[in-house]
Amino acid sequence: MFDSASRASQRLQLNSAGKLKHFVSIDGLPRETLVQIMDVAESFLVVGEKQVKKVPVLRGKTIVNLFFENSTRTRTTFEIAAKRLSADVINLNVSTSAASKGETLLDTVRNLEAMHSDMFVIRHASSGAASFVAKHVAPGVSVINAGDGSYGHPTQALLDMLTIRKHKGSFDDLSVVIIGDLLHSRVARSQIHALRILGVKDIRVVAPRTLTPSSLESFGVSVWHDLDSALEGVDVVIMLRLQRERMRGAFLPGEQEYYRSYGLTEKRLTYAKPDAIVMHPGPMNRGIEVESSVVDGPQSVVLDQVSYGIAVRMAVMALALGNAQVSELGAEA
Amino acid sequence: MFDSASRASQRLQLNSAGKLKHFVSIDGLPRETLVQIMDVAESFLVVGEKQVKKVPVLRGKTIVNLFFENSTRTRTTFEIAAKRLSADVINLNVSTSAASKGETLLDTVRNLEAMHSDMFVIRHASSGAASFVAKHVAPGVSVINAGDGSYGHPTQALLDMLTIRKHKGSFDDLSVVIIGDLLHSRVARSQIHALRILGVKDIRVVAPRTLTPSSLESFGVSVWHDLDSALEGVDVVIMLRLQRERMRGAFLPGEQEYYRSYGLTEKRLTYAKPDAIVMHPGPMNRGIEVESSVVDGPQSVVLDQVSYGIAVRMAVMALALGNAQVSELGAEA
Amino acid sequence: MFDSASRASQRLQLNSAGKLKHFVSIDGLPRETLVQIMDVAESFLVVGEKQVKKVPVLRGKTIVNLFFENSTRTRTTFEIAAKRLSADVINLNVSTSAASKGETLLDTVRNLEAMHSDMFVIRHASSGAASFVAKHVAPGVSVINAGDGSYGHPTQALLDMLTIRKHKGSFDDLSVVIIGDLLHSRVARSQIHALRILGVKDIRVVAPRTLTPSSLESFGVSVWHDLDSALEGVDVVIMLRLQRERMRGAFLPGEQEYYRSYGLTEKRLTYAKPDAIVMHPGPMNRGIEVESSVVDGPQSVVLDQVSYGIAVRMAVMALALGNAQVSELGAEA
Repeated sequence: MFDSASRASQRLQLNSAGKLKHFVSIDGLPRETLVQIMDVAESFLVVGEKQVKKVPVLRGKTIVNLFFENSTRTRTTFEIAAKRLSADVINLNVSTSAASKGETLLDTVRNLEAMHSDMFVIRHASSGAASFVAKHVAPGVSVINAGDGSYGHPTQALLDMLTIRKHKGSFDDLSVVIIGDLLHSRVARSQIHALRILGVKDIRVVAPRTLTPSSLESFGVSVWHDLDSALEGVDVVIMLRLQRERMRGAFLPGEQEYYRSYGLTEKRLTYAKPDAIVMHPGPMNRGIEVESSVVDGPQSVVLDQVSYGIAVRMAVMALALGNAQVSELGAEA
Repeated sequence: MFDSASRASQRLQLNSAGKLKHFVSIDGLPRETLVQIMDVAESFLVVGEKQVKKVPVLRGKTIVNLFFENSTRTRTTFEIAAKRLSADVINLNVSTSAASKGETLLDTVRNLEAMHSDMFVIRHASSGAASFVAKHVAPGVSVINAGDGSYGHPTQALLDMLTIRKHKGSFDDLSVVIIGDLLHSRVARSQIHALRILGVKDIRVVAPRTLTPSSLESFGVSVWHDLDSALEGVDVVIMLRLQRERMRGAFLPGEQEYYRSYGLTEKRLTYAKPDAIVMHPGPMNRGIEVESSVVDGPQSVVLDQVSYGIAVRMAVMALALGNAQVSELGAEA
Repeated sequence: MFDSASRASQRLQLNSAGKLKHFVSIDGLPRETLVQIMDVAESFLVVGEKQVKKVPVLRGKTIVNLFFENSTRTRTTFEIAAKRLSADVINLNVSTSAASKGETLLDTVRNLEAMHSDMFVIRHASSGAASFVAKHVAPGVSVINAGDGSYGHPTQALLDMLTIRKHKGSFDDLSVVIIGDLLHSRVARSQIHALRILGVKDIRVVAPRTLTPSSLESFGVSVWHDLDSALEGVDVVIMLRLQRERMRGAFLPGEQEYYRSYGLTEKRLTYAKPDAIVMHPGPMNRGIEVESSVVDGPQSVVLDQVSYGIAVRMAVMALALGNAQVSELGAEA
C-alpha cells in the first residue's frame, strides 16, 4: 500500500520523461530527482551573493502564491525566490477572498489558470490539498506544495537535505535524530522520506509519548522517548518547532516541563558527535525547544538553512516549470 | 436627462481628440470606443499564451490599485494585467489606511498624484466614486473604475462583450437574457449599457420582483419574472452573482427557493437556443444560482470570461494611459 | 551626554570613509551628509517626471519593508521609491507574522539577512528599534528608519528640509515654527535636529502645555504656548498631525477647543510673513489642526512635501546601500 501510494505520487510529480513537473511530496520522488534539485540549488546559491541577484530564467512567467493559511515567513521565501528568477509574483491570501464567498478550491484554481498563471505555490490547512490541485491543474501549469496540513512541507525537507549535504558531504553512514512534536509536524514526515530516499540508515525520532504518532515505526525510523540516549553519537540534530498554536488541550504538561525533558541544551548536545550540526526550521522558541546558546553556538546551522531555502525554492521552481512546459510542448507537437 | 448624463460621461472619459482617457462608465462611450478596446484586447490575448507573457507598453509607469472595498479577485486581475504591461503596481487597501485616520478621498488621491502615480484603479463602495476622482485628477493621470457601489463595473461588462463577440461573431440579431439580482448588481447596469451601445435589440432581464429595480424598463430592456419564458430562444445567458453579503433582510424567501425559481439548470437551459452560451462573472454559488453541470458543461464560457478579462484590462490600461498622457503633452505644447 | 549620544549615532550611521551607511536618526549626521542627500534627491526629482520613471541603480537588490506597526502611507512611499530604483521589494507586516509566533526581533532580522536581503526599511512602535537593528545587522546590509516610537522619523524630517530649501533657497536667517502635538510626535524631534544641523537659528515650537515635553528647551528651541505670537514674522510654518490614536485620556479638552487655540486658520496665518510656506506631514485633519482653505491655499506646500518624499527616500536608499556595500567590499579587500 505504501508502495502503491509512492508510485501514484511519482506519476503525479514527474512528466513522461521522468522529469519533475510538480513538487507536492518527497514521497515517490527518485533519489536522482532530489540530487538534481540540490545540484541546481547549489548553482543558484551564488546568485544570492552577486551584486545583481537576479537571473532571467522565469521572466514573463506568472507565479501565484495561493495561501489558504497564513504564513508570512514561507510566503516571503517563495516570493524572494520567484523574484530572483525574474518571475511576476501575485500574492493571494485566500482566506479573505473568494473562498469566503463560497467558491470551491477548484473554481479558484480554474480562474487563476484562465488568467494564464504558470505556477501555483499552495499553502493549505488540509492534508493533500496541493496534490489534489496538481491532479486537476491544466497542462503546462506547475504546482508547488508550501505546506499542507500534516501531510508534508517538501521544500523545507529538501533545504534541510541540502544543509546536511553541504556540511557533511554525503548521506552515507550518517546518524540523524529528529526531536520534537512529531504528531503535528508536517516537516518531520517530509524529512523522514527524504533521508530514507537519500540513503540514511540510522534515523531516530524522539518525542514525548503524547506527541508520537503510532504509525511511525513503519516509516523505517527508530522511535525514542529519552533525548539523552537518542543523541548518542549522532551527526545531525534536527529540531522541530513546538507548534503551540496547533496543539489542542493536554498533550503537554507545560513548556518548562517540555524544556526539562526535550529542550536541546548545551550540556545535552555533548552526547552527539563533537562535529554534529544542529538544525531548526524556525521560528524558534528559545528556552522551550532549545537553549539560546545552542542556537547561537558554533554547531548551529539554522541560518544556512534559511539561505539554502531560497536556493532550493529557486531550483524547484525553475525545474518544475521548465519541465511542465516542455512536456506540454512535446504533447502538443 | 439620460442624454445629458451620457454627454457628461463622454466629456469626462474622452480627451479632446475623442480618445479614451478615463474608463469609469460604459454609459456615454461611443460604439467605436468599445470596439477599439475589444480589438486591442484581442491583440493582447496572444500575450497570455506566449512563453514570456510581458510587453513593455507601460514600463516605468506607476499604477495604484486603490481599493476602498476588499476584492482580491478583481484586484488580482488588474495586478496581473498591469504587470504583463511591465508597469509597477502598488496595492493600497485603503480601508486599513489613511481613510481610517480621517483623510478625505481627495486628499488620498492628491497625495498619490504627488508621488507621480500615472493611473488609479479604483474600487469603492459608493456609486460614482470613480467618476468623482476622474473629475478631479491631475492632467496626465488616468482613472479606471474597478466597481463602485451599484453604479457600474465597466471592465467586467466589456470582458463580457468580448466573450460574446468571440463566440457569436457579431451583436446583430442576438437575444440576450440577464438573470439574477438586478437590484444589487453593478455589473448588470454596465452590461445593459454595453449591449445597447453595441446594437443588441433583444435584451431581457429576469429576477424576482423583490430584486427588480422599478426604473429598469427605461433602459430599453424587457423585464421578466418567469425564467422559463425568458430563456426561450436566446443566444446568450448572462447570470449575475447572488450578492448574499449585499442583501439586507427579506428580499428572498431562501436560497433553495431561489434555486427552484431562478437557478439555471440543465433542463431549463434547453429553452435557450442549442448553441446558446452561458456566462457568469464569478465567484459562483453552485447549486444556488446555477446547477454545477451547467457551469462545467459545453455551453459554459465562464473561464473564457476570465481570460478575456485580463486582456480587456490590459487594453483599457494601455489605451487610457497612452491617450491621457498624449493629450497632456498636446495641451502643454 | 547629548554629544556622546550624537557621536555614537554618527559612528553607527557613517562608514569608515564618513559616508552614509544606515539612516536611522538625523541626530549625529554632519551637515554635509544632509546636504548630499538633498542634492541627490533633487537629481532624482526629474525621474518622477519622465515617461519611464525608473533608474537601474538598485536592480537585483532585495529591499524588505519590515513594518512592525501598520502604516500604509509610509510603506507606499518607500515601495514606490524602491521600485523606481529597480529594486525588488518585499512587504512584511510583522505584527501578523513570526513575531506573533514568539520569534525575537533579532531572529527575524537574522533570517531575512540569510535570505540575502540588502536593506531593511523598519517601522516599529518602540523608540530605538531601527538603531538597535542597525547595530546588529550584517556588514553590507543597510537599515533605514521609517519611524520608531517617539524617537524619530528621519526621512520625513529630511523631505521637509528639502521642501524648505526648494522654496526658501537657503536655511540662513529663517524663522521656523512647529505647531502641534510635540509630546507624541516622532517627526518633531527629527525636524528640530535637522533644522539645527542646517543652521536655522530661530526655531519656535508651539503646543498646549499638556502636549509639551519638559525637556524641549535643551534642544535649542524656544517654547511658546500662544500661537498668534509664535507665528509673528516666521518664514516657515510646520504643522504636526494631531495623533488622536496615540493620545491617552485627558491631554486635550476636545478637538474643537484645540482648533480654537491651535488650529491654523487663514486669519492666523497673516501673522506670518506674507511669503511664509505652510507644511504638514499628512494625513491632515481638516478643521482640527488646520483650516481647509489654508491647506488648499497658495502658501501650502503639502503636496510638494509628498513629491520630495519619494525623491528623498530614493536618495537615502541609493546612497546608504551603495556606501554600505562599498565599505564592505573595502573591508574584505
